[in-house]
Formats: sequence, C-alpha cells, structure tokens
Amino acid sequence: MSDLEIRPAAPTDIPAVVAMLADDPLGAQRESPDDLAPYRAAFQRLADDPNQHLVIAVREGSVVGTLQLTVIPGLSRRGSTRSIIEGVRVHADERGSGLGTQLIQWAVDESRRQNCQLVQLTSDATRTDAHRFYERLGFTASHVGFKLAL
Amino acid sequence: MSDLEIRPAAPTDIPAVVAMLADDPLGAQRESPDDLAPYRAAFQRLADDPNQHLVIAVREGSVVGTLQLTVIPGLSRRGSTRSIIEGVRVHADERGSGLGTQLIQWAVDESRRQNCQLVQLTSDATRTDAHRFYERLGFTASHVGFKLAL
Repeated sequence: MSDLEIRPAAPTDIPAVVAMLADDPLGAQRESPDDLAPYRAAFQRLADDPNQHLVIAVREGSVVGTLQLTVIPGLSRRGSTRSIIEGVRVHADERGSGLGTQLIQWAVDESRRQNCQLVQLTSDATRTDAHRFYERLGFTASHVGFKLAL
Repeated sequence: MSDLEIRPAAPTDIPAVVAMLADDPLGAQRESPDDLAPYRAAFQRLADDPNQHLVIAVREGSVVGTLQLTVIPGLSRRGSTRSIIEGVRVHADERGSGLGTQLIQWAVDESRRQNCQLVQLTSDATRTDAHRFYERLGFTASHVGFKLAL
C-alpha cells in the first residue's frame, strides 16, 4: 500500500467524509449526503472548538478514512483529561487494509500528546466486528453506553 | 425538601465536589481528596473551555450533587451536536431524594437549550442500579463503552 497521510479535515473534504458516514449499515438511515448544508454548519462548529479534531486519512489523493477526536478535561480520576473517539469510518475499498488500526493508533498517540490519561469510545451493540477490533487494540468493554434522542 | 439550586461550580466548590467523587465504590480507588492540586488545575481547564459545564446542586448552602456536561459538535447524524454527561454524583445524605433525576433533567434541558440532538453517557458495567435509573429516564442502553488507559 502507498503512503497514508492523516491530517485535519478541510472544508473541501466534507463531501468525501459525509459519503463515508452514509456508506454504513447504520449511517445509511441517518445521513443525507445529497444535502451538505447541515454538515457545513457542523464543520464550522468543529473548526471553532480547539478541543475538536476531525481528521481524514488520505491515500493517493483520495479520502479513505475519518474519525473525530474530542479532548475533555474533567475533575474525576484526579483531574484526568480524557479523549473520546467518534465517527470512525474506513472507505469500503480500504476495509481489511489495516487503516482502521492506523486511525485509532493516530487517535491514541494524539491523546497521549495532549496529556490525556484515558481514551474512550462507544460502539453500537450491533457492531460486533468493531467490538473485537477495539479489544484487539487494547480497549476494555467495561461500560454500558446510554443514549437519549432529543 | 427545601429548594434546590443547580449552578456552575466555582473554585471554592472543588473540595466538596472531590469529596463526592471519592465517596463512591469506584471513586474511592482513584481519587485523592487529600491532594487538591490536580483538581484545581483540571478546574481551570474546564473553566477555559466554553463547551464544558461542571455544575453543582446546592441545598441549604451545602453541595449535594454534581455532574459534568460536555457539548460536542460533529458531522455524523446530519451534523448533529451531542452532549455527554460524566461524573454524576449525589451526596450520600441525598440518595433516594430524587436529586439524581433532577440533575439529569437539568443536563437534558441544558442540552436541548444548546441545540443538541442527542445526550449520551456511559456507566460502568458494575453499576446496575444506575443502569435502571437511566432507563427509567428514557435512555437506551444501545452501545458498548470501551476505555483504554494511557
């Protein structure tokens, strides 16, 4: 495989990122790649928040992966800062290439660089392959993730 | 019960908040209420981040509860903003008083006010009473929560 670059997403990357979000069993039901306006507004909110890191993986000029890393200070665990990984996607052409591992490794390295003591994420209970993937990378499935739609 | 006020935590509230974090089966092992320096540094990081809301519940001048709400913009789910609840604690004297419900209701109301479309949290798999509590409040245990200590 040729060289991979992981870098902050730019506004011009929005269509490629949204296409990956939608190309997913769960994402297909809740994304609207034909209407990018809400994504452009959200991109601006991300760009305005220094604790948000939306990155893309690029290979041969194509966007092949993405994730969002959020840095969250807090009092608990002796004032630990934690990071949260959301919105991990790997392009269909790249599945099985090790790109998912490289993306998560980037997030873990960046979290360490930002003095986080904990990295966390939640994964839909139906994504059993993803659960094995995170456990192979050293994550522990110690928590139950609750959501409430508003 | 007399009136309850939920308000942003001030630096003078740090000892009371840390005491509650430590008065907990899991927190007892990972907090250091006798050394507040790391908590004071973390408090400043929270105060510097406009998307962080560390609040306390006060009754008759005493701090009786706390939680941290984080507002997280994102591209997924059509550019949804979500909130994350962390560090929920109710003082031992107040358990069973309905204060936990009032704290979570505050977080849900504030999330709505900040245009969040989703509220989420994770709860340690051992906290089965907490899981029933969140389900009663309308949350769905749809996800598995993974953590990696750095």
